[in-house]
Amino acid sequence: MAKRLIPLLDRVLVEKLQPATKTLGGILLPETAVSKMSEGKVIATGPGRRNLQTGEPIPVSVTEGQTVLLPEYGGTVVKLGEKELTLYRDEELLGVIQD
Amino acid sequence: MAKRLIPLLDRVLVEKLQPATKTLGGILLPETAVSKMSEGKVIATGPGRRNLQTGEPIPVSVTEGQTVLLPEYGGTVVKLGEKELTLYRDEELLGVIQD
Amino acid sequence: MAKRLIPLLDRVLVEKLQPATKTLGGILLPETAVSKMSEGKVIATGPGRRNLQTGEPIPVSVTEGQTVLLPEYGGTVVKLGEKELTLYRDEELLGVIQD
Amino acid sequence: MAKRLIPLLDRVLVEKLQPATKTLGGILLPETAVSKMSEGKVIATGPGRRNLQTGEPIPVSVTEGQTVLLPEYGGTVVKLGEKELTLYRDEELLGVIQD
Amino acid sequence: MAKRLIPLLDRVLVEKLQPATKTLGGILLPETAVSKMSEGKVIATGPGRRNLQTGEPIPVSVTEGQTVLLPEYGGTVVKLGEKELTLYRDEELLGVIQD
Amino acid sequence: MAKRLIPLLDRVLVEKLQPATKTLGGILLPETAVSKMSEGKVIATGPGRRNLQTGEPIPVSVTEGQTVLLPEYGGTVVKLGEKELTLYRDEELLGVIQD
Amino acid sequence: MAKRLIPLLDRVLVEKLQPATKTLGGILLPETAVSKMSEGKVIATGPGRRNLQTGEPIPVSVTEGQTVLLPEYGGTVVKLGEKELTLYRDEELLGVIQD
Repeated sequence: MAKRLIPLLDRVLVEKLQPATKTLGGILLPETAVSKMSEGKVIATGPGRRNLQTGEPIPVSVTEGQTVLLPEYGGTVVKLGEKELTLYRDEELLGVIQD
Repeated sequence: MAKRLIPLLDRVLVEKLQPATKTLGGILLPETAVSKMSEGKVIATGPGRRNLQTGEPIPVSVTEGQTVLLPEYGGTVVKLGEKELTLYRDEELLGVIQD
Repeated sequence: MAKRLIPLLDRVLVEKLQPATKTLGGILLPETAVSKMSEGKVIATGPGRRNLQTGEPIPVSVTEGQTVLLPEYGGTVVKLGEKELTLYRDEELLGVIQD
Repeated sequence: MAKRLIPLLDRVLVEKLQPATKTLGGILLPETAVSKMSEGKVIATGPGRRNLQTGEPIPVSVTEGQTVLLPEYGGTVVKLGEKELTLYRDEELLGVIQD
Repeated sequence: MAKRLIPLLDRVLVEKLQPATKTLGGILLPETAVSKMSEGKVIATGPGRRNLQTGEPIPVSVTEGQTVLLPEYGGTVVKLGEKELTLYRDEELLGVIQD
Repeated sequence: MAKRLIPLLDRVLVEKLQPATKTLGGILLPETAVSKMSEGKVIATGPGRRNLQTGEPIPVSVTEGQTVLLPEYGGTVVKLGEKELTLYRDEELLGVIQD
Repeated sequence: MAKRLIPLLDRVLVEKLQPATKTLGGILLPETAVSKMSEGKVIATGPGRRNLQTGEPIPVSVTEGQTVLLPEYGGTVVKLGEKELTLYRDEELLGVIQD
């Protein structure tokens, strides 16, 4: 049975989307053209960090299924079975990408 | 279909405006005259950082379409399709420029 | 009589689960395949850190019996009789693993 | 048309007043006599930093037109057209000078 | 007359319990077996650190007479007459040990 | 017309009192005897720092005319006309001296 | 007329009590036996630091006349006339000693 990971506090579990290294015509893009910025899909989110006043959790700012723009550095690589996923803090994610 | 990036938390997406390197008469300005300060147009803004006391977002201090004065350093370059944009924290932006 | 350790503040007592170093067929997994990420079972939790504003304890985010994903570093090794356990801060734990 | 810069958050835009390098009799003051402390006139002020509780801005402590005592270091030089101005944080300004 | 020390703020006065260096049968335990973790008995506790909101003290999380698990480092050694005691911050104590 | 300096935020303007380097009998005190601690008279005080929670100013703890004990280091020297004064943060001042 | 020093904020003025370097019988104690911990008598206390919320002072935790256990390091030596006293922050004092 596959394992599920539920992030804690303000962590967000993301599956990195491989950046297109070939143009539609199949020509290999030069290394520099491949943006160091990578995108990822939100797999699961934590309940959020605690509000210092009320003790209530402050919800993270992304939801499952969204495509997010990832920073060049940071994140903790996590292996669930054969899958390689990455845990980010909500604070590290740069933005949500909409087509 | 073009991609849209919605910044998270207190981030602001800016398109840098190329500083005038030539005077109106077309004469090339010396390098030093070109101010290291650059200006940019606000493309999109995040909802703002969460107030840790009340949990409410604290709105960023600029709005879409405004021209802003950018700091000499900082910002994260982001490529959306062919466009090169820059993500700043609200805190980094120096001022709003009005003609 | 066996000793019991009740963690203080936001500490969590965890018993590390030995990662499977052999496939089901018994073949020794190469060192790299063994994920540096390790899992552990929550043995006991502290009452939580005090909210400096209200004085109320902020409950930790895991409960006894849960399986948690542990960070690569951190934790304080503690010997209770013959058992070797590890104390983490709630903040350090990455996520809860559900089958 | 001249450009106007409205500082953001708790920033204050200042035009530095040239310190008197000559005595009234026109004799050149020795370098050391010229106080490293410089004065400046407040051109524009930001709305202020946000109050962590209410989210309301906390007004800066100087107003347009006041003469202020500037610190020896700090400030960001900004060119508006031909004018060279300096952006300070409210926190950096030492005092208000009254004749 | 023996002197009494009442810790201030969130400090806790502890008397270290000598770890059993011999097994019940009297055989000298090898150095490594003797856990670097040591235990101690709580002699006295301070009133606690002040709550920033209300000014009220936030009680420390241990009480007189409890056996506590001490960190490997930290603590300030204090001599009261012939007795050698150690002052810890509440924050440093790892847990309470119950038989 | 003499200039007046009104300190900003929690700053305090002080005129240093020259420490007595001679005993009443006029004998020159050895360098070491002259305490590095110096005293000063409060010339003017700022309105106080803003309480980031309520936005209210937190008044400084000294008033004009008081004699204060100054720390060995710190302070910003300011020249007002021919007078050399020193700006301290309220936090830096050690105590009020009463005869 | 003797000078009086009233400490500011959360400072406490202490007169160090010379540790007994001789046993009652007058035999000189070896250097090591003389505890590096020293004791002192509280001469005067400041009003306390301001509570960030209410602006009210948070009273220091010791009172005039109490004997306190001093840390090995820290404190600012102050000379009042011929007397050598030491200023501590309330936070630095370890405990109150009662006979």
